[in-house]
Amino acid sequence: MTFKVALVQMAVTAVKSENLEHAVTLINKAATNGAQLIILPECFNSPYDTTCFPKYAESIPGPTSDILAQAAKDNNVYIIGGSIPEIDNGKVYNTCPVFSPSGELLTKHRKIHLVDIDVPGKIRFREADSLSPGCDFTTFDTPYCKVGIGVCYDLRFPELAHIYGEMGCKFLVYPGAFNRTTGPSHMEPLLRARAVDNEVYVALVSGSRDETASYVAWGHSTVVSPWGDVLSTTEHLETIVYCDIDPDFVDKVRTRLPILSQKRTDMYSLTNVVKRK
Amino acid sequence: MTFKVALVQMAVTAVKSENLEHAVTLINKAATNGAQLIILPECFNSPYDTTCFPKYAESIPGPTSDILAQAAKDNNVYIIGGSIPEIDNGKVYNTCPVFSPSGELLTKHRKIHLVDIDVPGKIRFREADSLSPGCDFTTFDTPYCKVGIGVCYDLRFPELAHIYGEMGCKFLVYPGAFNRTTGPSHMEPLLRARAVDNEVYVALVSGSRDETASYVAWGHSTVVSPWGDVLSTTEHLETIVYCDIDPDFVDKVRTRLPILSQKRTDMYSLTNVVKRK
Repeated sequence: MTFKVALVQMAVTAVKSENLEHAVTLINKAATNGAQLIILPECFNSPYDTTCFPKYAESIPGPTSDILAQAAKDNNVYIIGGSIPEIDNGKVYNTCPVFSPSGELLTKHRKIHLVDIDVPGKIRFREADSLSPGCDFTTFDTPYCKVGIGVCYDLRFPELAHIYGEMGCKFLVYPGAFNRTTGPSHMEPLLRARAVDNEVYVALVSGSRDETASYVAWGHSTVVSPWGDVLSTTEHLETIVYCDIDPDFVDKVRTRLPILSQKRTDMYSLTNVVKRK
Repeated sequence: MTFKVALVQMAVTAVKSENLEHAVTLINKAATNGAQLIILPECFNSPYDTTCFPKYAESIPGPTSDILAQAAKDNNVYIIGGSIPEIDNGKVYNTCPVFSPSGELLTKHRKIHLVDIDVPGKIRFREADSLSPGCDFTTFDTPYCKVGIGVCYDLRFPELAHIYGEMGCKFLVYPGAFNRTTGPSHMEPLLRARAVDNEVYVALVSGSRDETASYVAWGHSTVVSPWGDVLSTTEHLETIVYCDIDPDFVDKVRTRLPILSQKRTDMYSLTNVVKRK
């Protein structure tokens, strides 16, 4: 059962209310164009800036998630709500809320791995300056297939994609915000390798590029097939990227190249420690 | 301490003696051009064909490895001898022998993961039809850095690269023979992701393309930096690809982006089962 996804590569400003209104406009547009699962970028209601995270943070459920829930219900679509700064018990998280077509908050993913980068003369960013990390794997079921969620830097850890594959996900979604230093060298090969290694579809959804922001996003929202080919992508301007996802193709690829059953578990073993607890 | 490597993308024929003579000629040439570590492709003394493996198989040490040992000594270089069909106790392996500049057989890597591919109308190949798998990780020390070895399909398993990284390798070498079905979609993104995920140099060395062979190699021998950039590569014709490797750059990248110390071992854990035994 093929389904259509929309990657909303939206422009994010410093005005939260504008961002929310703009997100809903683009969700409505994507749904009108037939999308059944609509994905927003990382940190779509706030600038991607450690000093902003605490100021923009809300609880989930809360005002932003209420608006997304309503948009999901109004359009009868799944929404993967990119991420927003979430506050809970005095701690701030980078969190992705997920909504069903009836407007139910299905789950939320708190970014597990926090960005820590320092490339002299180019970029320095430490999410831990104001964020706390999540401690849970996050998947949800749809009539099409099971979906696994990571947020941006989570893509750098192959273990997460592997565990989602083992949990039965056929589609991995990463709201993200690579930058112009890491984007060109890392983003596409990591997406393609996660897809090939786990024989799943993989998407990353970025905001569009704002050269005046303190953190400039790379853009290039992309969907990759389980065979590792780029199916849909774009440059750095605001746009919606559409792609048809065919969960049955995952099974075809796994028959062609049965790498998942060829793991040498007598030599190495990846354990889901959370599950074992 | 930077060192120069040579990726010998040689043409392989069905005549073993010709292949050996040709390999030595190219090793001599690479050494004359300043290479300190010379790498041959997978299955360089035999056609890459399951019916050929038992016929061409030798022991290691044996005639082919003696010739490579002498070439290493004559040129005062390290040689990673691609791979050859090896026979031991009635079993045939796809094995990579490694030689020191004094001509010593330092170690050998028996391909751990055997190719199993069936893409209707394109390619079908099952190494297990005539080969047995190796059961050991293989590294060796040089004055430059520690090196980890995989053979082609071993590249598909991120666990191997991860374990080599943890064992202290800064350079991973895969003699290989991707084909025209898997090469374009898989080879470069897998090389780049192994490099980025483990912050190591990675090289794959293929034979050149022979359109008349039963198995047609993709070529495109490539070296990738720990930052994930392609440093040296080529198309499909016979050639030698040279590249300077700087082990100190590995440390620089690990400081820029400390992902290796950011693994969430409270959530997942990759175990080297062989070591634990």
